[in-house]
Amino acid sequence: MYRIGIDLGGTNIAVGIVDERDNIVSHTSLPTGAGRPAELVVADMCRAVEIALAQAELTVEQCESLGVGSPGACDGKQGVVLRSYSLNWHNVPLAQMLNNYFHIPVRVENDANCAALAETRIGAAAGRKNVVMVTLGTGVGSGIILDGKIYSGLNGAGAEMGHMMLCYGGELCSCGRRGCWDAYASATALIRQAGRAAQSCPQSKLNRIPKITGLAVFETADEGDAAAQQVIDRYCQYIAVGLTDIINALAPEMILIGGGISRQGERLIAPIREQVATACFDKRRAAIPEILPARLGNEAGIIGAAAL
Amino acid sequence: MYRIGIDLGGTNIAVGIVDERDNIVSHTSLPTGAGRPAELVVADMCRAVEIALAQAELTVEQCESLGVGSPGACDGKQGVVLRSYSLNWHNVPLAQMLNNYFHIPVRVENDANCAALAETRIGAAAGRKNVVMVTLGTGVGSGIILDGKIYSGLNGAGAEMGHMMLCYGGELCSCGRRGCWDAYASATALIRQAGRAAQSCPQSKLNRIPKITGLAVFETADEGDAAAQQVIDRYCQYIAVGLTDIINALAPEMILIGGGISRQGERLIAPIREQVATACFDKRRAAIPEILPARLGNEAGIIGAAAL
Repeated sequence: MYRIGIDLGGTNIAVGIVDERDNIVSHTSLPTGAGRPAELVVADMCRAVEIALAQAELTVEQCESLGVGSPGACDGKQGVVLRSYSLNWHNVPLAQMLNNYFHIPVRVENDANCAALAETRIGAAAGRKNVVMVTLGTGVGSGIILDGKIYSGLNGAGAEMGHMMLCYGGELCSCGRRGCWDAYASATALIRQAGRAAQSCPQSKLNRIPKITGLAVFETADEGDAAAQQVIDRYCQYIAVGLTDIINALAPEMILIGGGISRQGERLIAPIREQVATACFDKRRAAIPEILPARLGNEAGIIGAAAL
Repeated sequence: MYRIGIDLGGTNIAVGIVDERDNIVSHTSLPTGAGRPAELVVADMCRAVEIALAQAELTVEQCESLGVGSPGACDGKQGVVLRSYSLNWHNVPLAQMLNNYFHIPVRVENDANCAALAETRIGAAAGRKNVVMVTLGTGVGSGIILDGKIYSGLNGAGAEMGHMMLCYGGELCSCGRRGCWDAYASATALIRQAGRAAQSCPQSKLNRIPKITGLAVFETADEGDAAAQQVIDRYCQYIAVGLTDIINALAPEMILIGGGISRQGERLIAPIREQVATACFDKRRAAIPEILPARLGNEAGIIGAAAL
C-alpha cells in the first residue's frame, strides 16, 4: 500500500505519493494561494493529489491514508488546523474535508513536527526516539519527537522553540515580543546582523553584495572578510544559546538543524557543538545530545505527513 | 502493601512509609552529612527506613518497593545517581546498594521529578498527564511529567529549566554562565534584587530589615513600600518570562510553582498569569496552560519517590 503526504506551505501545496519504504514515488505541487477560503485551498489540494496519483499510475484505493503537514497549531486528534497565520485559517476541519473527498483516513499535524518525524524515520535521526529538529529559515521553527511520536503540546500550542527568550528586552521579534531566539538565530536575523555590520564597517566586502542573503554572508567570510566572519561567529553563538536551552530543558538524544543555512554543514555546526558543550548545565559527555544537520530537505514535510 | 519513599536532600534524608492511597503513614529524617562517601550515607538511609518502619509497626516485607528522589542527574533505568554536586557523588549505584540491604525493588530518580510526579498523583495536578513543576528556591528547579511519566532526558540530563537563558550576557548564575533564568527567578535572586533596591533607595523600608528574605520582601511591599513593590513586580515578570519559554517550547497542560515563595499564592501567581497570557506565542485561551501553586510542599519528594 501507498500513503499520500501533503506539505501545505504558505506558498505551495506539495504532494507526494510515498511507498512502504518512505520513498516518494511521485510528487507535484500547486500554488497555495494563501489567504483564500479553506474550501478553495482544499479543492486544489485534492487536485494536486489526483495529479500525483495519475503520475504514479495509482488510484486512491491503493493508498491507505493521507497526511497533511500544515503551518500553525493543529489538533492532531480531531484533524483540525486550529490557527494558522500564514494561511489565515481558524478552526478548519481539514481532515474531515479531505476525507469527504477521498474516503480514506486523513491526519493533520504541524509541518515542523512532520519534518522532524520524517528525519526520525529515514533521515539523520533514523531510529532515535527523542529528537528536536530546529529549522533556521525566515523564522526559527521546531519540531519535537518524544518516545518516537510527535509531541505537539496542549491544543497544538507547543514546539515553538524559536520563541524562547534569548535576551529579555532585546531585538524585536516577528511575534511582537522583544528578545526571542527567532530574532537572533533565523536566516532573517543573520541578514539583519550582516546589514548592520556592513554599515558599521564601510571597508567590508558585505557592502559590495547587491543583496545580502544568508549564503552570501558565509561566502563573504570565506573570502577573508573579517566583518562577515565576525557576524557568523556571533550568529553561531546565538544558535548555540538556543540549543543549550533545548538541552537544559529537554535533553533530547539528538538535535537536528534544518533550513537553508544548515547546508553550511560542519562550517556552521562544529563551532556550535563546541559552544554548546561548554554552556550546557550538565557537562558530562553522555549528557550532551548529538547535533547534526537534517538530511531530507524539502522532502521531509511530505514524508513526515505521509507517515502520520 | 506499602511503599517506602526517600527524599535524599543535601541537608536531610527524609523517609516516609506510604500507603496505597499515597498517604504518609510514618516518617522520619536523619542528617545527610553530604560529602561523605556513598556507603556511609546509604547506611543512614537504611537506618532511617528502619526507624520509619518501626514507627509504623511494619516490616520491610510489607513494602513492595523503595524509591529515592536524589538531587542531580539520575539514570532511572539503572538506578544510578550519575552526578550530584550537592552530594558530591558520581556514578553511585544507589538502587543496587539499597537492594542489597532490603531485597525489594529499588528505584531512583531526580528529586524535582519525584515532586512533580507526586503532584500529578494527589497534588495540584492530580489526573494531569503533561505537567511541568518549577520550584523557586535557592535555585530554580524543574520536574517534567509527560504522558503521566517522569521525563528525565538523555542520561538524566534534562529538566534543568532554571538554566534556560533569560538574558544573554546578563546576571551571573550559580552554574557559572551569565543570564540563566535561575539568576533572575530563584529566591536567592529575589533577595539580591531587593538588596540592590535597598541600596539605591535609602528611604525604603527594605533598609530596616535585619536580614532580607523572600518573605520579608513581600511583607515590606504589603506595608506600602514602593521600592519593595517594584522589586516584586519585576521579579514576577522574570518568572513569567521563564514560564512563557516553557509554554512556547512544551505547552504542558499545567505548570505548578513550588518552593517557599509559592506560599504567596495568588499574590504571586495572578500577575504572572496575566503576563504569560500576553507574552505566549500562541495566544488562544485554550493554548495557555493553567498555572497554579504546588500543593504538597515538602511531602511531595517522599510521595513521588514512593510512587516510582
